[in-house]
Amino acid sequence: MIYPKSLEKLINYYKKLPGIGEKNAERLALATLNFKDEDLENFSKSIIDVKDKLGKCKICGHLAEGDICSICSDSSREQNLICVIEDYKSVFSFEKAGNFNGVYHVLNGLISPADDIGPENINLASLVKRVEGLKKPELILALKSTIEGETTTLYIKKIFEKKDVMISRLSYGIPMGAEIDYLDIITLDKALEDRKKISE
Amino acid sequence: MIYPKSLEKLINYYKKLPGIGEKNAERLALATLNFKDEDLENFSKSIIDVKDKLGKCKICGHLAEGDICSICSDSSREQNLICVIEDYKSVFSFEKAGNFNGVYHVLNGLISPADDIGPENINLASLVKRVEGLKKPELILALKSTIEGETTTLYIKKIFEKKDVMISRLSYGIPMGAEIDYLDIITLDKALEDRKKISE
Repeated sequence: MIYPKSLEKLINYYKKLPGIGEKNAERLALATLNFKDEDLENFSKSIIDVKDKLGKCKICGHLAEGDICSICSDSSREQNLICVIEDYKSVFSFEKAGNFNGVYHVLNGLISPADDIGPENINLASLVKRVEGLKKPELILALKSTIEGETTTLYIKKIFEKKDVMISRLSYGIPMGAEIDYLDIITLDKALEDRKKISE
Repeated sequence: MIYPKSLEKLINYYKKLPGIGEKNAERLALATLNFKDEDLENFSKSIIDVKDKLGKCKICGHLAEGDICSICSDSSREQNLICVIEDYKSVFSFEKAGNFNGVYHVLNGLISPADDIGPENINLASLVKRVEGLKKPELILALKSTIEGETTTLYIKKIFEKKDVMISRLSYGIPMGAEIDYLDIITLDKALEDRKKISE
């Protein structure tokens, strides 16, 4: 055995993380070894803490410490403007961008018949119920533009189309800074379709 | 605050690791969140364990669980053939290569007057003592070819040159597979100087 046993164990846990290979795991483990005692204890504790303290928000399905997440319990946010997203990573992205003052609904998945994931397998029923209790609800569907994303978008649109709910989706188009001649044709087509009038 | 508190803490500890930036730390923390409960507990425990269980080998200075490392306590290895290295990362590299059957001496540093690191600040005194107790000792100096490495190599050579100790250093030369015309001139010079006769 090349590594002392306790070091080998730590290396193996680092290897379980995405994008961390053998060499990198060794490097991280050796760096961990050089942490101050206090940091080591707190690092160790913080791993247990995310398990013990984090659950799902009972309203939106986002990560929460306690029953309701910090966004749903923030009365300064528009609770009737709901951005529907695939998973909580998108919440962090929107919150970093920082311009959205509504709330979220985390589906924790997308409808995918090929993978046997139907509407009942994602966090949709709670969205229907949630919207029923709101005045002038507005849904922004922010799902990715894959078959699964589009299917889920259409399905949600169908559920709500006869109810008095305003529904929109994110615009498709050219990513900022991208070279037009390097874009794939589908994106280009969508950007053409979603073109906006230039206002004076 | 974008992240729940306990998640934010974990992200911050990942960020302390080398080469892990903001985005990557978030990715690792979210992946940790998806670990099985058992893995989470063991990962957390393994961080504390490296602190509690790993110390320095009293003979060679390498990482050890207990007083003596697994290499120094392996009687099948030639205890009088000592490879002198800068830090324990080199031990792992040699052990992975797998062709060295001697033992190591980990200096935990190199002599560097510019950084106020003298011979007394690295693990050298114990090497002198260690060599005294050996029959036909042989030292292989495997230090890097920087000013600090060369200084340390020369210093060690000087300590032992009047004693009956065989001393060698690793050969300098062309890395396997490297293009000759891309090599820096110092490496090329060293490779010329260290040239070996081709035996039939």
